[in-house]
Amino acid sequence: MTSTLPPAVDPARIQEVLDGRWAHVRRDARDSLRGPDLLPVYGETVAEARERVTRAVRRLADTGRVFLGFPEEYGGDGDPGGSVVAVEMLAFADLSVMVKAGVQWGLFGGAVELLGTRRHHDAHLRDIMAFDLPGCFAMTETGHGSDVQQLRTTCTYDPATGTFDLHTPHPAARKDYIGNAAKDGRAAVVFAQLVTGGRPHGVHAWLVPIREADGRPRPGVTIEDDGPKAGLNGVDNGRLSFDHVTLPREALLDRFGQVHEDGTYESPIENETRRFFTMLGTLVRGRVSVGGAAGSATKLALDIAVRYGEVRRQFTVPGAEREVLLNDYLVHQRKLLPALATTYALHFAQDELVVRMHELQVARADGRADGRADRAQVGGFVDEAPQRELESRAAGLKAAQTWHATRIIQLCREACGGAGYLQENRLPHLKADTDVFTTFEGDNTVLLQLVAKGLLTGYREEFGSLDGWGRAAFIADLVRETVLERTAARALIARLVDAVPGRDDDVPLLDRGWQLRMFEFREKHLLDGAIRRLRRGAPARDADQFAVFNAVQDHLLATAEAHVDRVVLEAFVAGVERTSDPDARRLLDAVCDLHALATIEARKGWFLEHGRLTPARAKAVTATVNALVAQLRPHLVTLVDAFAIPDEWKGAAVLREEAGRQEAMAAHDALLRQGHRQGTATALEVVPAQ
Amino acid sequence: MTSTLPPAVDPARIQEVLDGRWAHVRRDARDSLRGPDLLPVYGETVAEARERVTRAVRRLADTGRVFLGFPEEYGGDGDPGGSVVAVEMLAFADLSVMVKAGVQWGLFGGAVELLGTRRHHDAHLRDIMAFDLPGCFAMTETGHGSDVQQLRTTCTYDPATGTFDLHTPHPAARKDYIGNAAKDGRAAVVFAQLVTGGRPHGVHAWLVPIREADGRPRPGVTIEDDGPKAGLNGVDNGRLSFDHVTLPREALLDRFGQVHEDGTYESPIENETRRFFTMLGTLVRGRVSVGGAAGSATKLALDIAVRYGEVRRQFTVPGAEREVLLNDYLVHQRKLLPALATTYALHFAQDELVVRMHELQVARADGRADGRADRAQVGGFVDEAPQRELESRAAGLKAAQTWHATRIIQLCREACGGAGYLQENRLPHLKADTDVFTTFEGDNTVLLQLVAKGLLTGYREEFGSLDGWGRAAFIADLVRETVLERTAARALIARLVDAVPGRDDDVPLLDRGWQLRMFEFREKHLLDGAIRRLRRGAPARDADQFAVFNAVQDHLLATAEAHVDRVVLEAFVAGVERTSDPDARRLLDAVCDLHALATIEARKGWFLEHGRLTPARAKAVTATVNALVAQLRPHLVTLVDAFAIPDEWKGAAVLREEAGRQEAMAAHDALLRQGHRQGTATALEVVPAQ
Repeated sequence: MTSTLPPAVDPARIQEVLDGRWAHVRRDARDSLRGPDLLPVYGETVAEARERVTRAVRRLADTGRVFLGFPEEYGGDGDPGGSVVAVEMLAFADLSVMVKAGVQWGLFGGAVELLGTRRHHDAHLRDIMAFDLPGCFAMTETGHGSDVQQLRTTCTYDPATGTFDLHTPHPAARKDYIGNAAKDGRAAVVFAQLVTGGRPHGVHAWLVPIREADGRPRPGVTIEDDGPKAGLNGVDNGRLSFDHVTLPREALLDRFGQVHEDGTYESPIENETRRFFTMLGTLVRGRVSVGGAAGSATKLALDIAVRYGEVRRQFTVPGAEREVLLNDYLVHQRKLLPALATTYALHFAQDELVVRMHELQVARADGRADGRADRAQVGGFVDEAPQRELESRAAGLKAAQTWHATRIIQLCREACGGAGYLQENRLPHLKADTDVFTTFEGDNTVLLQLVAKGLLTGYREEFGSLDGWGRAAFIADLVRETVLERTAARALIARLVDAVPGRDDDVPLLDRGWQLRMFEFREKHLLDGAIRRLRRGAPARDADQFAVFNAVQDHLLATAEAHVDRVVLEAFVAGVERTSDPDARRLLDAVCDLHALATIEARKGWFLEHGRLTPARAKAVTATVNALVAQLRPHLVTLVDAFAIPDEWKGAAVLREEAGRQEAMAAHDALLRQGHRQGTATALEVVPAQ
Repeated sequence: MTSTLPPAVDPARIQEVLDGRWAHVRRDARDSLRGPDLLPVYGETVAEARERVTRAVRRLADTGRVFLGFPEEYGGDGDPGGSVVAVEMLAFADLSVMVKAGVQWGLFGGAVELLGTRRHHDAHLRDIMAFDLPGCFAMTETGHGSDVQQLRTTCTYDPATGTFDLHTPHPAARKDYIGNAAKDGRAAVVFAQLVTGGRPHGVHAWLVPIREADGRPRPGVTIEDDGPKAGLNGVDNGRLSFDHVTLPREALLDRFGQVHEDGTYESPIENETRRFFTMLGTLVRGRVSVGGAAGSATKLALDIAVRYGEVRRQFTVPGAEREVLLNDYLVHQRKLLPALATTYALHFAQDELVVRMHELQVARADGRADGRADRAQVGGFVDEAPQRELESRAAGLKAAQTWHATRIIQLCREACGGAGYLQENRLPHLKADTDVFTTFEGDNTVLLQLVAKGLLTGYREEFGSLDGWGRAAFIADLVRETVLERTAARALIARLVDAVPGRDDDVPLLDRGWQLRMFEFREKHLLDGAIRRLRRGAPARDADQFAVFNAVQDHLLATAEAHVDRVVLEAFVAGVERTSDPDARRLLDAVCDLHALATIEARKGWFLEHGRLTPARAKAVTATVNALVAQLRPHLVTLVDAFAIPDEWKGAAVLREEAGRQEAMAAHDALLRQGHRQGTATALEVVPAQ
């Protein structure tokens, strides 16, 4: 939508827009996250990394900055959105610290808060907040990571003793990849199948002491070390097994299910699957945080690659005294600028997601404080749909952000050549540490299935189950029509889309309404097609349900991808809309164009196949992307400046050194040229062959 | 081209085809590459890794197996092809060992052999082969990696003393990322600008002692450590600077340029740029080896992911007692099988490249032995074109293989979930160690430019220069017509293509001739277009040449990609053709179909844009890929069995343990079900909720 850009834009104006509602949390992090332990130390051993990260987390606890998300009555700020933004900022410093903090205060503390009740809060929340009770979130088992409803650990109530028996029946039921387990954890929230009165009641959680004060494992608890990983070596991941460990009845985190002394089971949510996914749903914050952290790592990698490309030169051109800057090569711009544009888009989508999560959670907390029962809130559709939608959004964006991070950090590594491979230039850590994000807190492929399922059911009848889609055909039958769920900028988007004339070919490629309509069309068409295929395939026998689902699986994932594409673009459009500074707005507008058209270009095969791009128009998309890239080239550094990443956090030697080296070389080359012109060149000072 | 596949194919029959001409080298490696030092040790420190890898390399030297590529008169086998295959096999064991061996015997030893003359060979080759003289290949500088013709280190001859003065004028001229430098290297082949008689003569190489026998750096030599890297931590990369180091005249490796006692310079190749690229060209073996090693790492990663997916189960389906195998999900097959098919394709392309390189180098060596002068061989076009073509092929395949490795190893890591993130399961090492392959031995993007340049010039007028394409327009003017250079299977390919009827839409998608024609069309169309655009843009002034080149850069890279695509497919077709076992041939035929169609699917946007796929046919390509994937599913394990990777090399704990865990869980689940049916289930033995 932009024809010309201002020659220069103040990055502070863009930063204001990016910083958004929790600007104060971001500013505080930039000012206060200091000290050697908070940054990765290159070449440290696994043991050293763990020690450092434990110190860093302890220091964070001492500052109280990690209490944002906890209830005010326990000394927190009751600010769930702020707590996610704080994690996002921590990710700029060191991802091991971020993950360890996320385990302690997000997963472990969050589970005690959200699955437990007042007696658990009173007894433990302050210790957890202060890191005086380091803990684990022991859900995943060696045999079950994605399908956690099928966990094999059991916890059986015996009314005779009034105690639970926690047990690991076989090696596949061992808790695995558990952060804080190998070294620091004193307690764990352990998820297991609750059995009482001879009947199973599905997965519940218990607060379980796992280590004595002196660090030895408690009787019946076996702790193993997961050993060195690809990255995140400052996090002490480990394995926990339980050999008939006795727990008091009070150990059950009983907000969603209580076991009375006589063994009677009671829950405000009757359906076991619904109950489990309601419990899981309260923990959505972890998934939102991982997406945000992936975004931070991507921004940092782009910051390093863009600044390197702005001083690094290679290859001579006729008539120029100095070699060409990497950032002046079309192909280098073609790598960095669309990556940056999509990073912006994802930032706005993340921002919108955090706001939505915050408002829902604050409303719930207020409801609880007002004395309304959980029962009412978790039982009916009224409250459930927005929660399911939030979970779906969190799942989809987590997948998009973490895959984007993996791809773009790799791109940045390569864009820095050999320097990008040295730990001293930070990119190896960013890459190795974020790698696992694509499969932890939900495997991305499984998460996209969850998104597709939400689209099929309209977030109503079904739960966040990640199961094998046994009833896929049935689900599809429930959907009467596909209506695109609108994002925050509903009215604006609708206005833009409606303003576009009917025929695509008459509309300029930079028309925002047309871009939005293309994204909408793709989502709707894929969703309609998926529903049709599922209905058509509806099997007569249960046993054939898997085959029906499996034949459509790739189609469903494409549908989820198209949905996330649209949500992300709409968030970016809304972000541009609320930018008041005119120069910043014009620049963001062009970045949004680049994101939209580069995405359409990446999916052009699909659009051509479905008659929504003519060959000529598809070629015009590519030409326009190139034109936008050229237009944005002068603003490349501005766009990373706007991330406002403090220099101390970057830890890339090459950013400190390369400019000086290039200057020294240029000065030396100039001397040689001068000597040549004056005929005074000595043998040693001769210009290298041109 | 295959309608039905045999129910089972003996992997040994496929292995025979894959093993090819150097099957004896592969067999020997499988039998003999043993011992703990040869495999990565998970969690070892950088210092420990370096010690282990030095021991492993020393042990390799003792076995004599690394002498394959050296001349027979010094105890070698004169078998350059065999030496590349040996490196490829070594890459299965440990990539640090592979790289360290490659530096010592490929780069360092190869440079002494191929750039030096008899006096250097007599004095040093045996010590180099025995690792008694560990050495470095000191070409790259901190300031120049891709554009090595612009190195800034100088080496200046002084007739008064009869010595050279080797000097690092500024920090950008420091030698960097040099393997063997930080710890072991006693000598280095150092590349620098040769100056004599006050005139520069371009880059040459000298054999330079860098350490005393006791390990201290020699006077005037400064050695720094590059420190920890993303991977390859067993390789001691470092930095070398020279402060006016005096070298005897004989230190010049003088096969392509001699400095007489009085300082007179003489070379069989007059043109300085041609001379430099002729020197570089002799070292093509390194680039070919990196491509092969990337292939091995990819195969190993796929082997692990496929076998994991064959035992790992997740999510229940109605009516089934056990959960679904990962390999039975369409989306999992869609990830693994096309990856595997392209890995096969690249294997055959690599094989063809090694044969071509071998024959050219053996012919050259024979020529030298016959007393024909180097002058005749390097001077004229007659000998030059095949060498340039080889270099271009090596560059293109190196880029394709290493990017494929980076992408597919990541895919395999994710396909193994959390297990894939643990070092004990090998994938983290494969990923981190191969990462740098995309930028070392030539940055992939720069290499693809080299390929495009070769296509534009028909490998004739220009040299393998990686420069900024100053004379791009001029180059394009030289090309009279674009003729596709044929691969090894010329006659067969031509026959298949010619047999296809004119109209695409009538031809079955599995018609090999049609597939080949699609690849041909894309290459030829892109190349024609690039030439047209370069001609049209031909600038009036020198200073505008960069702009002309830069505007076409993305088009040129697409051209190179299309060329490599075709070369790879044709090699696979030729490989299928020479498969004699009928079952193996039918299976490989289907794998080749999958590779061809998955590639067309990935480029379908382009084909639709250029009218070579209709929307209906594009959708049919996707449907056919899905059908092939289903057809090949039963052969998934066979296809990795055929790589014949010894179990000892895999080093993945999960492959040893997961099957047992799944069996234990299944047995336990069955017991619980039985107890339920008999009404004897105790509270502890209850089935987890379904």
